[in-house]
Amino acid sequence: MNKIVKKKSKVTPRSEESKKILSNRLARLEGQLRGVNKMIQDDQYCDDILIQLSAIDKAIKSIANLILDEHLKTCVVSNIQKGNLEVMDEISTLFKKFQ
Amino acid sequence: MNKIVKKKSKVTPRSEESKKILSNRLARLEGQLRGVNKMIQDDQYCDDILIQLSAIDKAIKSIANLILDEHLKTCVVSNIQKGNLEVMDEISTLFKKFQ
Amino acid sequence: MNKIVKKKSKVTPRSEESKKILSNRLARLEGQLRGVNKMIQDDQYCDDILIQLSAIDKAIKSIANLILDEHLKTCVVSNIQKGNLEVMDEISTLFKKFQ
Amino acid sequence: MNKIVKKKSKVTPRSEESKKILSNRLARLEGQLRGVNKMIQDDQYCDDILIQLSAIDKAIKSIANLILDEHLKTCVVSNIQKGNLEVMDEISTLFKKFQ
Repeated sequence: MNKIVKKKSKVTPRSEESKKILSNRLARLEGQLRGVNKMIQDDQYCDDILIQLSAIDKAIKSIANLILDEHLKTCVVSNIQKGNLEVMDEISTLFKKFQ
Repeated sequence: MNKIVKKKSKVTPRSEESKKILSNRLARLEGQLRGVNKMIQDDQYCDDILIQLSAIDKAIKSIANLILDEHLKTCVVSNIQKGNLEVMDEISTLFKKFQ
Repeated sequence: MNKIVKKKSKVTPRSEESKKILSNRLARLEGQLRGVNKMIQDDQYCDDILIQLSAIDKAIKSIANLILDEHLKTCVVSNIQKGNLEVMDEISTLFKKFQ
Repeated sequence: MNKIVKKKSKVTPRSEESKKILSNRLARLEGQLRGVNKMIQDDQYCDDILIQLSAIDKAIKSIANLILDEHLKTCVVSNIQKGNLEVMDEISTLFKKFQ
């Protein structure tokens, strides 16, 4: 008899409100990227484009921080309480990735 | 008779090839942002989403470095040769913005 | 009768080995900073000095990551297990400080 | 007869005032590193030590920015005016190193 065991991937259930907030912020970022593309096609000055890109960079970090804060207080706490301490390796890796 | 005087803003003429390369990279980034949004709507695990966001962050810095390299060797050099040394204040500001 | 109540500050007991490793790395960094100072007094080229400073910057982050890794696996885990979840706000703040 | 030819390395002449300012700031940083070492030997709380390290990290970047600003307005400008455009590759590399 066959038994197909599907690897259950990790999930993070999110509230509709949280999904909407993040979705709006990501949509705004997409708009900013399209704006940068237009600036490039229009031969606008490099320095102005670079300032825009640094703003986009900050916006991405800000979204990441929002997700991380939620992550630390929900997934990470509940994993540690269940004894899954390897979640700390994930946090440590993330720390370096965003440094 | 009317004469409309438009403030001439600074421009950086770019080759068609350069425009195409940057345009492709920005379009890819937009796709990655849409991917992150989908991950959020699908309740995927925070850590996986954060790793994606750090990759997007690196991609933005990489595009910025591409534009900056071009900028340093063209606009900045020609400005200094014309005696417009205030272009160095722009570089100094950019340096801090991306630090 | 006097009773002196001293505010008990938080402590992190460290092994002698861990203290020695960190102490050595910090002493090396102090030496690098003295080296940079000598380069400045000797009128050495700015670019060489800035490359040294970027190496020192990386070394500091690397020491911080070492301490953080230990912190996550000891203090943070034990705090969460005791129900002191506010330790997560500290991690979130650190994350931003090193970004 | 021997003639010893020493490779002339690049120099950046600095004013006594500039040397003194940078020297003081570097000495202060050395003091901060010794302070961090003492905190570690005294078993102080990791989070407090990490906050100190992030302050030291910012102080190093701030010294680097001071040196870079001077560098851009003196060495870099004079190099470009002499036609040594490869100085821009140095700036581009520094930009990435401090990113």
